[in-house]
Amino acid sequence: MIRRGLRAAARLGHHGALPGGPYILPRFSLASAFGSSMDSLVSRFCQEKTDLKNYALPNASWCPDMLNLYHEFLEKTKADGWIRLPSFKSNRNHIQGLKFPLVLTVSSDKSDCHIFTRCIKTEGQGYEYVIFFHPSKKKSVCLFQPGPYLEGPRGFAHGGSLAAMIDETFSKTAYLAGDGLFTLNLNTRFKNLIRMGSLAVLNVGVEKVEDQKLYISCVAQSTDQQTVYAKASGTFLQLQLEEDSSQY
Amino acid sequence: MIRRGLRAAARLGHHGALPGGPYILPRFSLASAFGSSMDSLVSRFCQEKTDLKNYALPNASWCPDMLNLYHEFLEKTKADGWIRLPSFKSNRNHIQGLKFPLVLTVSSDKSDCHIFTRCIKTEGQGYEYVIFFHPSKKKSVCLFQPGPYLEGPRGFAHGGSLAAMIDETFSKTAYLAGDGLFTLNLNTRFKNLIRMGSLAVLNVGVEKVEDQKLYISCVAQSTDQQTVYAKASGTFLQLQLEEDSSQY
Repeated sequence: MIRRGLRAAARLGHHGALPGGPYILPRFSLASAFGSSMDSLVSRFCQEKTDLKNYALPNASWCPDMLNLYHEFLEKTKADGWIRLPSFKSNRNHIQGLKFPLVLTVSSDKSDCHIFTRCIKTEGQGYEYVIFFHPSKKKSVCLFQPGPYLEGPRGFAHGGSLAAMIDETFSKTAYLAGDGLFTLNLNTRFKNLIRMGSLAVLNVGVEKVEDQKLYISCVAQSTDQQTVYAKASGTFLQLQLEEDSSQY
Repeated sequence: MIRRGLRAAARLGHHGALPGGPYILPRFSLASAFGSSMDSLVSRFCQEKTDLKNYALPNASWCPDMLNLYHEFLEKTKADGWIRLPSFKSNRNHIQGLKFPLVLTVSSDKSDCHIFTRCIKTEGQGYEYVIFFHPSKKKSVCLFQPGPYLEGPRGFAHGGSLAAMIDETFSKTAYLAGDGLFTLNLNTRFKNLIRMGSLAVLNVGVEKVEDQKLYISCVAQSTDQQTVYAKASGTFLQLQLEEDSSQY
């Protein structure tokens, strides 16, 4: 497994990252060939934070379809093994206590950073979404309601806003299902436009894990499953983050 | 050409859009098989608007690399055939006087809509970008500086924010180069992360036009061209919009 991982690393080094770039995706290390336990990933990610706002909770802008499906999945968290993922302002809030590779550390990060999909503060204007994750099935469902600040064609969501929502759901799924940390590829085939303020349901699943890569797929569709908005596939690079002992 | 267009339409109807969906991408019409002249598309798109804010102008948040390259391309607009594209709050400002197909009209659009890539109002916080377009070469260059509200990994731009920026540059290029109006496919291969606040240069070109589809490619790289951030390809559906006589 380690040797296969190293071969994959060499391929990435050859095809992917140009020499000399200061922000190159990290090469595989031996450490990254061992996966974290899913339980530890999930429990760290979902830990109770009383001081941080969780943006994945219902608000007055959510349409009835979104509220109904939210409560349906909330019921499934009680018996069917689904987990409602919290959503904080920044990814750094989700992975506190873990260390990034040196090549990815930033010298100064004093600015007020927001994860892209929580960049618009006013409720209902931008991204409204909540992700439910099923650890043993390695599946996620994202309920996504695009607001008027995500416009593309008049009255409809921008294709890029949907691609970004898919990427974000992929990335959370890839991380929790197996240390998937970086998007290597994202391919989205658009089928129908999403009307602003309506609900799109993103059904996401890990298809396979091979050569330290996770292969993930998505079907985004309407609540009644009669309209497919997009189909997508993505590949994520696994990288296990180490505990940051300097924080203790 | 028309017959080939209709065959493509049938394929799209078969593979793409499910029956019954209320917001299905429009089928091809005979009208859409005739292209608009590029001159008329460009002149309508770029018309002087004294009452609308143009977001594609330099501001205090632009980094030196972005400012330098902006002025370099500005020089090229005087002699080399490049055009600086204005960027208004909504796509509807760019295509005023044109009529959308009935299936894409919205009954109520009173909300304060923003094109997704101009969704964050504070300068430097979100998307800073300007697109230059070369009509005869069918190429575009987008200067893109991601701000701290586009974060993905700590200190770096979210992959979805880059995918959306590529989609937006593709869509403007596809529209002006030949009535390309809807993204059918967007495939992005990520190579390196973009550090927040630094410049990514998106080099975009139309590869071919076939069966009423435009095939477009992109290489996103650093100013010194030493680091490739992403390579992408996209397919756009051509659809010629008719003049909206009701507005006169």
